[in-house]
Amino acid sequence: MDQVNFVNGKTRVYGIVGDPIEQVRSPEMVTWEMQKRYHNAVLIPMHIAREEFDSVMPNIMRIQNLDGLIFTIPFKAKAITFAKTLGLQAAQIGAINALKKHSNGDWSGEIFDGVGCVEAFKRRGIPIRDKRLQLIGLGGAGSAICVALAYEKPKLMRLFDINPQTTERMVKIVNTISPQTVVEVGTPHADGIDILLNASPVGMLSDSRLPLDVETFKKELIVFDAIVMPENTPLLTLAVNCGCQVVRGREMMLGQISKIVDYFFAP
Amino acid sequence: MDQVNFVNGKTRVYGIVGDPIEQVRSPEMVTWEMQKRYHNAVLIPMHIAREEFDSVMPNIMRIQNLDGLIFTIPFKAKAITFAKTLGLQAAQIGAINALKKHSNGDWSGEIFDGVGCVEAFKRRGIPIRDKRLQLIGLGGAGSAICVALAYEKPKLMRLFDINPQTTERMVKIVNTISPQTVVEVGTPHADGIDILLNASPVGMLSDSRLPLDVETFKKELIVFDAIVMPENTPLLTLAVNCGCQVVRGREMMLGQISKIVDYFFAP
Repeated sequence: MDQVNFVNGKTRVYGIVGDPIEQVRSPEMVTWEMQKRYHNAVLIPMHIAREEFDSVMPNIMRIQNLDGLIFTIPFKAKAITFAKTLGLQAAQIGAINALKKHSNGDWSGEIFDGVGCVEAFKRRGIPIRDKRLQLIGLGGAGSAICVALAYEKPKLMRLFDINPQTTERMVKIVNTISPQTVVEVGTPHADGIDILLNASPVGMLSDSRLPLDVETFKKELIVFDAIVMPENTPLLTLAVNCGCQVVRGREMMLGQISKIVDYFFAP
Repeated sequence: MDQVNFVNGKTRVYGIVGDPIEQVRSPEMVTWEMQKRYHNAVLIPMHIAREEFDSVMPNIMRIQNLDGLIFTIPFKAKAITFAKTLGLQAAQIGAINALKKHSNGDWSGEIFDGVGCVEAFKRRGIPIRDKRLQLIGLGGAGSAICVALAYEKPKLMRLFDINPQTTERMVKIVNTISPQTVVEVGTPHADGIDILLNASPVGMLSDSRLPLDVETFKKELIVFDAIVMPENTPLLTLAVNCGCQVVRGREMMLGQISKIVDYFFAP
């Protein structure tokens, strides 16, 4: 009938803001999640040059039918200044990846990278509480995963990052969130560990390395990798070969998208 | 597969800017036309409050993957200031309804209301050249229709608007564009006329009036109405009852959309 059925004059607009933008997957995935829930809404890519972010952003937020934004590289830390209020995890990490407009016009921000990881485990029926975790990588996604895991009150969190200051900062945050969790730092390993989580870039794309020095895993170990491409990282391939249960980056992404859409449409 | 197929990170974004915005039809119709031509592009509604238009617009134009904008009420006259260069019809009328970004980053503007009307006649195989026209209404759409018709070099253009200054101004413009066209002004009628065009709001929605004082038409008369709602205005109903060929507002809209998409994607 000479028209599409997925956008019209009443459509509420959401955007993902990044520089570059072409690689993002949120437009097709978040829009699917919103329309699956019968919201008249689309999420579009918005490429804003990093040097223009501060001047352009406040005006993008003046588009009256724009109700939310997702931020990707390099804006997660800078975007926090546009939130009037912050969710707990965003406040602890000092970064946001989602900004939501409330009905009174105020904007609040939160970070969902870690929430998405926890959601992926919940959907698999794997509890985090009272478990012993090894987390490798405490950068953008890793610090968010670290905080979200701490809220689940594991028995032990062993943390590793190539930057010792980053590790030290995260140890303090975990101690604040979950005083009963034992926190260890040092070279990553899987001995005495229930769940091994990689949030470092080691193993991404054509990188054939493992993020820790290991040749085999006991089959009871659960192994997670935040990397989306490739779907089977060297770490996950080894884990599958050892008979371990694995949780993939794509599951974290789906968990995160679901939680962001919850956030956008919460009253 | 947990994702939609009509938007992704590489999608080029277009917008229609208005206040209010919910009534616009361009998002579904222009997006359809673009995707029918295999462009990875969507056109979304952008509601900008009229008092914020001047400050927000230049920043919207800084979104790197935004390549074009359409303007509706109340921005057609104000939007012209954001065009670095103007098409001929926009320059003559002093308003634009489309703004296009060129590969060097410059923006040009043009108005397509009139072009859409002429395109509708072309698609029906009805020539305007050497015909005798009566045009009623020289407002936003009417002045654009008047200019576009003049470029077709009709034999006679009889013009009417409730504002005599508007009529006088359009007479001068028609004389400039097509010196060989005889221009008449005065109470509208269909005597000695080949094509009668209504671009006034008379007959819109539940308005049961005719835009001219008439009881019947000769069946050779061709009757056009720019009104989209209702599809059959009192004028068109009378024309159909008299056996006249009619051209509808929806055809003008489709013609305009086609021409705007040509413009957006021209090299």
